Amino acid sequence: MSTGAFSDTGLFVCFEGGEGGGKSTQSRLLQQWLEADGHEVVLTFEPGDTEVGKRIRQIVLSPETGELSNRTEVLLYAADKAEHVDTVVLPALRAGRVVITDRYVDSALAYQGAGRTEAVAEVEAVNRWATRDLRPHLTVVLDLAPQAGLGRFEERDRIEGESLEFHQRVREAFLAMAAADPDHYLVVDARGSIEEIHAVIRARVAAMLVTA
Amino acid sequence: MSTGAFSDTGLFVCFEGGEGGGKSTQSRLLQQWLEADGHEVVLTFEPGDTEVGKRIRQIVLSPETGELSNRTEVLLYAADKAEHVDTVVLPALRAGRVVITDRYVDSALAYQGAGRTEAVAEVEAVNRWATRDLRPHLTVVLDLAPQAGLGRFEERDRIEGESLEFHQRVREAFLAMAAADPDHYLVVDARGSIEEIHAVIRARVAAMLVTA
Repeated sequence: MSTGAFSDTGLFVCFEGGEGGGKSTQSRLLQQWLEADGHEVVLTFEPGDTEVGKRIRQIVLSPETGELSNRTEVLLYAADKAEHVDTVVLPALRAGRVVITDRYVDSALAYQGAGRTEAVAEVEAVNRWATRDLRPHLTVVLDLAPQAGLGRFEERDRIEGESLEFHQRVREAFLAMAAADPDHYLVVDARGSIEEIHAVIRARVAAMLVTA
Repeated sequence: MSTGAFSDTGLFVCFEGGEGGGKSTQSRLLQQWLEADGHEVVLTFEPGDTEVGKRIRQIVLSPETGELSNRTEVLLYAADKAEHVDTVVLPALRAGRVVITDRYVDSALAYQGAGRTEAVAEVEAVNRWATRDLRPHLTVVLDLAPQAGLGRFEERDRIEGESLEFHQRVREAFLAMAAADPDHYLVVDARGSIEEIHAVIRARVAAMLVTA
């Protein structure tokens, strides 16, 4: 196990952004680099990385579900987050590990708040309660125009199938959150090469490992 | 359709209380009496009286689910309520109907708040948001000692299988809510005969129909 300076608190890194920006690829590359450096890393995602989360994911993403009340959708995603934080994220952080998650609270604020135009303050209140107000040390936003990102999919789930305007509101919400708190965000242009993007992320995380 | 004085707002009646108190029997009797009097009545229940609610009910009540984080449970029940209020309860009330529901927000406060000893104010905030703060005109609490109520079941679901202390906290929570707001609650001793209990409920609802 790592004896890094963050071993008391763990290190919590989130990947956020629209569809097709390379979140899962970049999370894996960051994991591999950190593990090669001797850190214990838990790579996880939302929604669905717990037993109950899988069943919630099936409800919220399956096109068969059809329309849901906005609040129903907010509360289902928040239930997934509550289970994820309590049973996966917090235990790993308490053990001094690095946790890298593909999506977290910002996705709720961007998709259910800005995307669905539900009141963001109330969506945030529910999500902060669900996650015990646990905040990431760093959120990496992989930024891409929705036209580019969605073009990468042949089949779309319930959320991917939303309108371009929906996905534009989502993108703007991620960028606004990052702009408001630069100490805890890194925005990367997702049009770069995989290796270029990884290098930018690595540099930022390396600096955190030194100063943590 | 009824031309009663509540035709602008509908009439919203909830049945609450622990297990085995006769909520479903008494809801049906009240429905039949109101229908015989010319009212349109929607008889419904929580959790599970919507398509997504059925899937949520399966998660929260099946013993196979095992342990859930308290907040996960609160949020899943609240998701069921959000869908129920938006797609069943509010449309019926807006059409001037009587809605009778077997369980509502008070069950969340009693079971997930008092029963699970999660902070009741926060459970309430989530539930009020989920239900757009829609309150019943009358809540009937069918009160019974848990020892008596649970004895009526041979097989128990995830909630019924909780400890006697859990179910005692639940009972006390229902009684405390009723005591704090007598204008909107009726507590009935569930040890009476079915017809005696129905007569007490009928008398209270009849008075509301006159003064509504």
